[in-house]
Amino acid sequence: MKYLSIKEAMKKATGKVSVRGWVYRERGSNKVKFVVLRDATDIIQCVIKKEKFSEDKFKEADKLQIEASLEVTGTIKEDKRAPSGFEIEVEEFTVVGMSDNFPLAADQNREFMDDNRHLSLRTRKMTAILKIRSTVFGALHEYFRSNGFYEYQSPIFQSVQCEGGSTLFRAEYFDKKDVFLAQTWQLYAEPAIFALEKIYTMAPSFRAEKSKTSRHLTEYWHCEMEVAWSTFKDIQDVGEGAIKHVIKKVLEVNQEELKILERDIKKIEPSLKKPFARMTYTEAIKLLKEKCKMDIEWGKDLRTIEEDKLSALFDTFIICTNYPKEVKAFYMMEAPDDSRTVQGCDFIAPEGYGEIIGGSQREHDIEKLKRRLVEMGENPGNYTFYLDTRKYGSVPHGGYGLGVERLISWVCGLDNIKDAIPFPRTPMRYKP
Amino acid sequence: MKYLSIKEAMKKATGKVSVRGWVYRERGSNKVKFVVLRDATDIIQCVIKKEKFSEDKFKEADKLQIEASLEVTGTIKEDKRAPSGFEIEVEEFTVVGMSDNFPLAADQNREFMDDNRHLSLRTRKMTAILKIRSTVFGALHEYFRSNGFYEYQSPIFQSVQCEGGSTLFRAEYFDKKDVFLAQTWQLYAEPAIFALEKIYTMAPSFRAEKSKTSRHLTEYWHCEMEVAWSTFKDIQDVGEGAIKHVIKKVLEVNQEELKILERDIKKIEPSLKKPFARMTYTEAIKLLKEKCKMDIEWGKDLRTIEEDKLSALFDTFIICTNYPKEVKAFYMMEAPDDSRTVQGCDFIAPEGYGEIIGGSQREHDIEKLKRRLVEMGENPGNYTFYLDTRKYGSVPHGGYGLGVERLISWVCGLDNIKDAIPFPRTPMRYKP
Repeated sequence: MKYLSIKEAMKKATGKVSVRGWVYRERGSNKVKFVVLRDATDIIQCVIKKEKFSEDKFKEADKLQIEASLEVTGTIKEDKRAPSGFEIEVEEFTVVGMSDNFPLAADQNREFMDDNRHLSLRTRKMTAILKIRSTVFGALHEYFRSNGFYEYQSPIFQSVQCEGGSTLFRAEYFDKKDVFLAQTWQLYAEPAIFALEKIYTMAPSFRAEKSKTSRHLTEYWHCEMEVAWSTFKDIQDVGEGAIKHVIKKVLEVNQEELKILERDIKKIEPSLKKPFARMTYTEAIKLLKEKCKMDIEWGKDLRTIEEDKLSALFDTFIICTNYPKEVKAFYMMEAPDDSRTVQGCDFIAPEGYGEIIGGSQREHDIEKLKRRLVEMGENPGNYTFYLDTRKYGSVPHGGYGLGVERLISWVCGLDNIKDAIPFPRTPMRYKP
Repeated sequence: MKYLSIKEAMKKATGKVSVRGWVYRERGSNKVKFVVLRDATDIIQCVIKKEKFSEDKFKEADKLQIEASLEVTGTIKEDKRAPSGFEIEVEEFTVVGMSDNFPLAADQNREFMDDNRHLSLRTRKMTAILKIRSTVFGALHEYFRSNGFYEYQSPIFQSVQCEGGSTLFRAEYFDKKDVFLAQTWQLYAEPAIFALEKIYTMAPSFRAEKSKTSRHLTEYWHCEMEVAWSTFKDIQDVGEGAIKHVIKKVLEVNQEELKILERDIKKIEPSLKKPFARMTYTEAIKLLKEKCKMDIEWGKDLRTIEEDKLSALFDTFIICTNYPKEVKAFYMMEAPDDSRTVQGCDFIAPEGYGEIIGGSQREHDIEKLKRRLVEMGENPGNYTFYLDTRKYGSVPHGGYGLGVERLISWVCGLDNIKDAIPFPRTPMRYKP
């Protein structure tokens, strides 16, 4: 018995088929049972007529509850009234696993659904998101590899901080007191460009941020890249290229899933078809003042509200560059034409989805780096290995980090970033 | 000025070229300086003749130390005496980053090299390994995706243990006391096969193992897969397929790197060309007694020494199946023909590289699972979410975990697994 996926069976369209899956919906009378079966590919209506089976066998069918698993053999035919346009008239069936009362239903609240995440993964919405998520991961790998990048991994256990101590998670590492979970790969990536030149990674990063916004996770997947001999413009170009490639692949592969999510494709297409809007921080401030009538001071970081207002002015991503030095990380390079600013860039998504990429050209002046570490309250002695990258044949270089769940959120048009990852982790949520 | 990689320049073979990289070796007289330049692709000899430059400019060249970075323009030509068969007669050069006395040399000990891992990544050996590592990651992604698997990620922060409490790392997760770092994705993967059916991941896993062997890391990359509706044989087939695909790709892409590592390809080819040796644990015990004259009792797990003796009998991987229940994890399924054993399999690498894959068919009897959790000293109440997978439409399924660094170690023929990962982590080693 060769089982087809439901999609393959519908492609066959006639004749005898065997499929298997889970009960998505069921209804029936004492003469006939209708079971909508789902598998990873689609759903299909299966009709079990009493007249074809013994009393006992039909009782088995009659007892089928949502999420029971079964194998089915029968004749497939087109039927416009059926939910996916096809129907199987069942000749044989085997119940593989019965199901208790499945606890999930349409009207349940967020908390309950999150407590039962292991079950809500099976919903059509979550399955659609998981498929798009898989496409996004694949597209990022494909983009970097096809552009000559090596895949490279940095350690999760790190003895330094890169993005500020307040969001560090500590690990109980035997008797050691100074082992933290990676916030970024950066300090461990830069040493490797001297070997491989162009590198990228897809790995979890950790931020102990207490903020409970719909944009933050304590554990998220981070796509990071670093390139030797690059210019600041190169970094921006590779960021735009990666996002465009992701959009392209999702539109190619996941039309059905986008439909299930009711995502308006017109909202994502412009970022594929048009160049991203590039502007400096100073220009962004000017726009916010003039077009949005916002009272904002030069020198402060853009907050969520400002990023959102800015994103509403464009239908593509915005690449905002040359931020004031004070609001950015210690390793960013001073802008050659204005030492108050650094060659850092944020990619702000359309529709108020916030910052997806943060990148920069890296400072290579070892004295400036030390000074900024001291200003941060850090002991430069702990960063010897990092500073060494500037000591032995330093070269211009830069890189960025892309928050994969944020990109997935935007592509899918999600309300909450928690749905962009299978088991979300936030300050309050660490189970199941 | 368009810079070529050294490999591209050698392909061009004649005429003017511009390349850039780091000083790999240098020697000179007061008339000429020979600099062997390396980049991510290869090395090439550059000849800087005093007669072509001003006094000051030639002094710059004369001062060049190992690992200084520079850009070079000149005429390339074949020269059989040069280290990679080509030579550039330099017409212009720019020193980009000077280098202090580079601290690494050939005769340094393991400890010193590990303390300076951020620099030793640049050695030809480590660069070759990192390139093969990138190929291995890519090949695993490619294998699973081309066989219809979705890429799926489980959380690193977990509130359960799967592989025994003694090797758990605890995280300081706000005020929570029961948050651990993932040992495996398994308990979080099984719920997802009800949505996606065939899934895989590439992610870090953590084991707080105190053992200081050359096979153990506390942080390693884990390629895991899980498949709905699979048989035990399917799981073994997918394991063999994945390893064969990795070997195939490395042989296609990394001949040069294997040469640098002096890896005898004849040791890895048989596992590509021949089927893996499949045997039960009981048969393995018999072989060990008869062929290796070992005194070993049925019922005990195979130790390193037994796996090594066994691997010496074959030139391919061994798939050893149907281990005694007591030595394997709680979730493995009882063998239908012998309830003393479980449908678990270990893939033992050739040449004494140990276990690369551990897999199994999963038990679906919820009562048996609870009983075995209690035997392990666990509270089944903490595993409700996992046991739910057996309650709502359970299906036959199985999966495995592959230790990526162990596979890389074997492919590269390494002495120590620490060299299979950029920044190794062991009980004593967590810096840099």
